Amino acid sequence: MDFGVTPFDGLPLPASVTIYEVGPRDGLQNESIVLPAGIKAEFVERLVDAGNTVVETASFVHPKLVPQLADAEEVLRKVTPVPYVRYPVLVSSRRGLDRAIDLGVSDIAVFGSVTETFARRNLNRTVDESLEMLAPVVARAREAGMQVRGYLSMCFGDPCEGKVSVLRVLHVATRMMALGCTELSIGDTIGVATPGQVTAVLDALIASGIPVDSIAVHFHDTYGQALANTLTALRRGITTFDTSAGGLGGCPYASSATGNLATEDLLWQLHGLGIVTGIDLQKMVDTSVWLARQLGRPSPSRTVTALAG
Amino acid sequence: MDFGVTPFDGLPLPASVTIYEVGPRDGLQNESIVLPAGIKAEFVERLVDAGNTVVETASFVHPKLVPQLADAEEVLRKVTPVPYVRYPVLVSSRRGLDRAIDLGVSDIAVFGSVTETFARRNLNRTVDESLEMLAPVVARAREAGMQVRGYLSMCFGDPCEGKVSVLRVLHVATRMMALGCTELSIGDTIGVATPGQVTAVLDALIASGIPVDSIAVHFHDTYGQALANTLTALRRGITTFDTSAGGLGGCPYASSATGNLATEDLLWQLHGLGIVTGIDLQKMVDTSVWLARQLGRPSPSRTVTALAG
Repeated sequence: MDFGVTPFDGLPLPASVTIYEVGPRDGLQNESIVLPAGIKAEFVERLVDAGNTVVETASFVHPKLVPQLADAEEVLRKVTPVPYVRYPVLVSSRRGLDRAIDLGVSDIAVFGSVTETFARRNLNRTVDESLEMLAPVVARAREAGMQVRGYLSMCFGDPCEGKVSVLRVLHVATRMMALGCTELSIGDTIGVATPGQVTAVLDALIASGIPVDSIAVHFHDTYGQALANTLTALRRGITTFDTSAGGLGGCPYASSATGNLATEDLLWQLHGLGIVTGIDLQKMVDTSVWLARQLGRPSPSRTVTALAG
Repeated sequence: MDFGVTPFDGLPLPASVTIYEVGPRDGLQNESIVLPAGIKAEFVERLVDAGNTVVETASFVHPKLVPQLADAEEVLRKVTPVPYVRYPVLVSSRRGLDRAIDLGVSDIAVFGSVTETFARRNLNRTVDESLEMLAPVVARAREAGMQVRGYLSMCFGDPCEGKVSVLRVLHVATRMMALGCTELSIGDTIGVATPGQVTAVLDALIASGIPVDSIAVHFHDTYGQALANTLTALRRGITTFDTSAGGLGGCPYASSATGNLATEDLLWQLHGLGIVTGIDLQKMVDTSVWLARQLGRPSPSRTVTALAG
């Protein structure tokens, strides 16, 4: 059924955007079931077949911390790379970076926290100590010619601290850019942000001189706010959006089954606005339905639920 | 935990809005389980206790068509009215209106379709025939001093016809206002709308001379789009939003468990933006959790799920 396209009242929304697919890494990392490497690799290849050009594929963090992704090397070896598609991996140390380099990886992501509580809990360091720890990793990756994405967690709210100050986000963001990151992913890790906050944080980042095309947003749908926040970011000129196929990945820090914004829900919005993504919605739905069967639980995505029938 | 308030970058969002709660009528009408009248009345009273000032309470349409609400009179008799709270009921005929008047009802709603397919399927009439049928009902209600809300279904998409023309919405909206309706509820009955369409329809209605404070929006979350569309309507000056407690009410026209926008998801957005609703979010969550137990299925609301734990 054709529901057509209606652009947004002449305001300068971007004509096309990049979806940064986090399902195989951030999504599966937060699912309780551990999938075999072959299924993970098939998942990545299905995502690329659907038109995704950036798929975060694996994590080289310590397998004790993230047992779901302990087989990162095996997954990477099983994926047949497609030209012009990027398959970034998350690394947290020089050792992980060296493994990534040995495997021919060309894009990495590193992880930082904006709040002290989360840095302490997740990285066992202060915010500034964790940035120092990242410095040699980012430097070495850039020397090796890699693109380096920096994740900023808890940019809008922290489960222990409540609302997060824009200045904290600005501090970590400018430090990560100074370390050499080529892109920042501004994360609402617990999904509490509302559009006024999104505007305030993005305006501050852009005003600080960080190029708008180096800023991605990473919204969680824990409180159902992700698409309203996405629309707000679109209006601020953001063109990179992190999503996970089928909304994969529960939120480990809130009592909710809903984690990442589902790729399909965002595609419905963007395609309805006439914004080009290059991704086939129905192929994404089919992939998410297939993966939901592997995980034994239905996708929390509204659009997948509506179109799966 | 306090996640604070951040208004929206100085743009003129309304300082306060009215939530038009449709759970007891539109919500329960689309649930498969029939609840006892006492539970329905308790539901209405809990909603009012949470701060709602408008609760659509019952339907006087033929009980064969909507068996879930066949006990409308009993429910109305059981509800102890609170001063300054409105308890509208849906009517579809002079006979239903007379029953409502006898019960002391002061607000009614009538139902119209924008598309011919839905008018034929749901009202067994053409669009224009259904408007003619409403004329004497609206006239009599206005003579009796009632407020009359007109529902417009399928304003953005129709499951059989696809995209709906703005001109069709304009035709039905202006006719309903001419009949004497005091408020219009612009419905995305199958939840397919995206923000460009919302802007186009609202701009056309406002440009036609319909007062903006006579326009309510009624979004369904079938594809997860409702809150982005709400934000778009807020920016167009709309101040009345139809929602259902806990997202109650499946969508009978799409293969999805998700129907109306959940009141709680909208409250999270509005309160985060500093917009006053007068409604206590936690009391709403408690009410939705209580009702979900009566219905034997969890609330599809993201915010209820996050806060129920």
